Amino acid sequence: MPNNDREIFNFLKDIFPICRSITGQGNRETLKKINEQVPIKIYEEKTGYRAYDWKVPQEWNVKDAYVADENGNKIIDFKKNNLHLVSYSINLNQVIDETELQKHIYSIENNPDAIPYITSYYKKTWGFCMRDKDRKKIKKGKYHVFIDAEHKDGSLSYGELILPGREKKEVLLSTYICHPSMANNECSGIAVTTFLAKWLQSLKDRKYTYRIVFAPETIGPIVYLSKNIKQMQDNTIAGFVITCVGDNNKYSFLSSRHENTLADKVARHVLNNFTQSYNTYSFLQRGSDERQYCHPLVDLPVVSIMRSKYGTYPEYHTSLDDLNFISPEGLNGSYNILQKCIQLIENNESYINNITCEPKLTERGLHPKGWESRHTGDHKKLRQKVLDMVNVIAYSDGDHDLVSLSEKIKINFEECLEHINLLVEKKVLTIKK
Amino acid sequence: MPNNDREIFNFLKDIFPICRSITGQGNRETLKKINEQVPIKIYEEKTGYRAYDWKVPQEWNVKDAYVADENGNKIIDFKKNNLHLVSYSINLNQVIDETELQKHIYSIENNPDAIPYITSYYKKTWGFCMRDKDRKKIKKGKYHVFIDAEHKDGSLSYGELILPGREKKEVLLSTYICHPSMANNECSGIAVTTFLAKWLQSLKDRKYTYRIVFAPETIGPIVYLSKNIKQMQDNTIAGFVITCVGDNNKYSFLSSRHENTLADKVARHVLNNFTQSYNTYSFLQRGSDERQYCHPLVDLPVVSIMRSKYGTYPEYHTSLDDLNFISPEGLNGSYNILQKCIQLIENNESYINNITCEPKLTERGLHPKGWESRHTGDHKKLRQKVLDMVNVIAYSDGDHDLVSLSEKIKINFEECLEHINLLVEKKVLTIKK
Amino acid sequence: MPNNDREIFNFLKDIFPICRSITGQGNRETLKKINEQVPIKIYEEKTGYRAYDWKVPQEWNVKDAYVADENGNKIIDFKKNNLHLVSYSINLNQVIDETELQKHIYSIENNPDAIPYITSYYKKTWGFCMRDKDRKKIKKGKYHVFIDAEHKDGSLSYGELILPGREKKEVLLSTYICHPSMANNECSGIAVTTFLAKWLQSLKDRKYTYRIVFAPETIGPIVYLSKNIKQMQDNTIAGFVITCVGDNNKYSFLSSRHENTLADKVARHVLNNFTQSYNTYSFLQRGSDERQYCHPLVDLPVVSIMRSKYGTYPEYHTSLDDLNFISPEGLNGSYNILQKCIQLIENNESYINNITCEPKLTERGLHPKGWESRHTGDHKKLRQKVLDMVNVIAYSDGDHDLVSLSEKIKINFEECLEHINLLVEKKVLTIKK
Repeated sequence: MPNNDREIFNFLKDIFPICRSITGQGNRETLKKINEQVPIKIYEEKTGYRAYDWKVPQEWNVKDAYVADENGNKIIDFKKNNLHLVSYSINLNQVIDETELQKHIYSIENNPDAIPYITSYYKKTWGFCMRDKDRKKIKKGKYHVFIDAEHKDGSLSYGELILPGREKKEVLLSTYICHPSMANNECSGIAVTTFLAKWLQSLKDRKYTYRIVFAPETIGPIVYLSKNIKQMQDNTIAGFVITCVGDNNKYSFLSSRHENTLADKVARHVLNNFTQSYNTYSFLQRGSDERQYCHPLVDLPVVSIMRSKYGTYPEYHTSLDDLNFISPEGLNGSYNILQKCIQLIENNESYINNITCEPKLTERGLHPKGWESRHTGDHKKLRQKVLDMVNVIAYSDGDHDLVSLSEKIKINFEECLEHINLLVEKKVLTIKK
Repeated sequence: MPNNDREIFNFLKDIFPICRSITGQGNRETLKKINEQVPIKIYEEKTGYRAYDWKVPQEWNVKDAYVADENGNKIIDFKKNNLHLVSYSINLNQVIDETELQKHIYSIENNPDAIPYITSYYKKTWGFCMRDKDRKKIKKGKYHVFIDAEHKDGSLSYGELILPGREKKEVLLSTYICHPSMANNECSGIAVTTFLAKWLQSLKDRKYTYRIVFAPETIGPIVYLSKNIKQMQDNTIAGFVITCVGDNNKYSFLSSRHENTLADKVARHVLNNFTQSYNTYSFLQRGSDERQYCHPLVDLPVVSIMRSKYGTYPEYHTSLDDLNFISPEGLNGSYNILQKCIQLIENNESYINNITCEPKLTERGLHPKGWESRHTGDHKKLRQKVLDMVNVIAYSDGDHDLVSLSEKIKINFEECLEHINLLVEKKVLTIKK
Repeated sequence: MPNNDREIFNFLKDIFPICRSITGQGNRETLKKINEQVPIKIYEEKTGYRAYDWKVPQEWNVKDAYVADENGNKIIDFKKNNLHLVSYSINLNQVIDETELQKHIYSIENNPDAIPYITSYYKKTWGFCMRDKDRKKIKKGKYHVFIDAEHKDGSLSYGELILPGREKKEVLLSTYICHPSMANNECSGIAVTTFLAKWLQSLKDRKYTYRIVFAPETIGPIVYLSKNIKQMQDNTIAGFVITCVGDNNKYSFLSSRHENTLADKVARHVLNNFTQSYNTYSFLQRGSDERQYCHPLVDLPVVSIMRSKYGTYPEYHTSLDDLNFISPEGLNGSYNILQKCIQLIENNESYINNITCEPKLTERGLHPKGWESRHTGDHKKLRQKVLDMVNVIAYSDGDHDLVSLSEKIKINFEECLEHINLLVEKKVLTIKK
């Protein structure tokens, strides 16, 4: 777990300024920062590498980019905000008039303070993004457009951490490293995933193996799957795409394609029991790497837990998705929720009874403290605790795992686990082999 | 498809005046009219033929029937409206007084302008039906009752059209030809079914075989089943009883006994997507030939799509169910809905993906027209179209046929099919064998 | 069935005064009274007998118990109401001061007229229960506490009646005999079960074997199960815990652990069709012997039908649960509902059709009386009756037993059975073997 409340946030701040794309130095720099926290393995896949229907493109690195007016004033400057340049813009050094320039400018009319985030990975073109209020100030005249961007054969970079458990069965955590300076989408996923990885690494005992992937969105998981699909299909019992987990608004849940996998049940239980409320999205409303992980020919049980879902908030894919939009509380809350999901999965056993009929609670020391005086004091809470415990016994029939047991009994898995641990200790229950 | 908007209506007008019953010349005349449109095969099953619990009765043909007062004025005249005579009335030529006459008269007190439709197929009696307002005018006195009706050993007539398809599996369309001059119930079923048959016959390629039955209600399908049950049980994948399809009111849906057969799913999908709203009836509220087709020992997957369901409208089974109650629009609408059901069945394949992970849409030419300029113009509709397409890909897992795929993705099957056809063409999807 | 409306009530009055506990003479006296009605077999299980996690405790019999003030006035007297003494209190003959006395007194502050019912079976202590309004009158001073109660090695008593049927498959009825003078909880269960047993015994023909158990709550069924579990697990098709069936308020239903056993379906059908409304409780809200019968390692299909459920009414477990709280109507109503459950189980066959397609109703004499004149008179009810009958035919597909057939057709099982009996007689239906 993080050392203090601002640790995840501070790490995010650290990676925020880097200019990332689907390839390039910014991604490598980001992976290096992650590696300082947790020992990921960094892979490079060469330009031209074929993964299913896709090919790793040329690598893209920008040194500088601006538009200057006739007086040499830079009216758009990549160095001030890396969102100003359309991602994967071609090299250019040209003087054009204002009419031509406007054809290559992107802005949002009804969000005049925001620089939009635009990409053109697979079509060779160029463009600049700017605030609509600044665009309105562009006068007739000549403009010097300068883009010093390198397109060269190189490679696509991604990171992976495999944390072995007692079992070969795996849990997948996946986030993406291709977005430039935007905080919620997607520095937050990188930051929260990094700290979940640190926590998982610190555990003395893990039941499951953890596969943690940091890769550019879409092409990243496609490349990754092309290398690991067999292993992942054989072993994955649950997976989480971690994205948009930085703001402090309502949680969002996006189900898997099958809607009712272990990952779905676990996520719903945790969100139902440990958040005030949350928005539910169907798999039809997906938009991140579950698109690949849940593809019919991949078919992994992967869901996504978010705060404000991509595409639903006005700051999305603009310069307004900045460090003010997110908060330490938002990041920490997401971290906690995902941690609980993992804890539930780690403990998701089924139990059987050792004793026919109800056990004798008193003799086995199963009554809670204060039980003796129950007839004189307020004992409603104690009574409910005992009822919950006998309900745990009643549904420990080998058919209910921790998540379904908790749902059945209408208590959260942590309370349920407390009862189970006592009942196992007192030899009433045994884990079903 | 019909040549013009009034073609189904005009055919209905043509058969409307004929006096039909469960047997007789009127039925043969009707079948002949159908045969002029589409080459049905006409069968005759002799009086006394045993079909399960039933026996083909004597044939009944009426030449004339009236009731005349002492002055020879015909106060009821079969020639003016064939509903005036109770169907299967016996021969009679007798003078009786008013009291005796009243015992044989049927009218509807709270619908005084309507001549009711009454039958007595299996009990030898006679009767006349008249408007209640006219009945009120009957004075004391003697009346001459004249019924020139022939009851003789003959046969029961029905029509059948088998349109072979690529597969032996069959779709059943069934309507009934036993009702005299009433438009919605049941000239409309005959007319719409005839034109569906014409359309099916015109198709160059049919996947399924079509079995189209024109027979008197109840005893007709029972006789028909006694001849064809094995073949129908082996092959029928869906069936439709076509009745009350002429008026222009809300559609009605009556489910099959099993409630969730292909016919049910298809009918619900089409009604949900191509009508404003419709009434739903359970199988407990059935009343037509699904009673036989869905009997446990027959057990075919047969539903019924109607406009105003029999028994629910005041004009039902009276002379007010006339050509004014129905309309070309009503008939054409029903024709279209049933046609769409058949089209959905014909195309109801399951699909599998050829490519692991999402395909590269641009390179495969899968982006809709106008996609390139999506960032400048209004591209919401284009975006939704692409989302629908990737959803088609995501659920093409071999477990979803066209109807369940469309339901899952919440688009109609025609839109779904458009995506599928493109994806098959672009080698993303393949029909599951 | 009882001889008159007060017979169950009178029997209850007869057993009401007896001081029962989990063991002792009061229980034997109660079993003897039951035995006068119906020939139960009475078993004695010795102190120290081990049943799973439990042990039969010493037997407890009280001769006298009181608290007297310095003037020798008995301020609490067991002989006036056996609830005054905490059940299983130890022997005592001691003078103590008021402060010490108060530590051993139980009363209910917000129910000042009620003597609470308190037990201490497994912890050696003593106590008195009294009305709170009387407790308030206790003055400072010395008090003589006298308890002449015998704790000795003896036995636990229970009764059993096995009524054999044509089949080895069993129905379980279970009630408990450990409560002292309280009427609804639990003289009512004893009384209603006794009279159900009498009725079952009077039947000339029983399909199922009936196992009827009268035992102290909790430890009684545990001891009983330790002797009979194999037989019960092999044969029990449905069971009912009969408790709190004496008052005339709304019925209550508590489902089995599996929620959807035959017992559940039967109870729900009967309560839905033969009561105005009823409260539903989940198995999580259980509190009587279904706790043992439905334990995962016992796993019998047992539900509970009650009037006012234990724990939900203010008179519960106090002296106010007296003969005024219950009524002959309350008892008889419960008796009838449970009797209908048993009748439904006895008749719960599946049926198949003998005739393909609908039978010819008239010729088979299947039309109800008055059917012929249906066109002139009001025939709505007759029509519905015929519709119900053809619906019985339509769903007699071998997959619907009486309870699911009745539910499907939305009529009660008695009406359904009437149709079935006629249809079997007329050779339309046959019981599925």
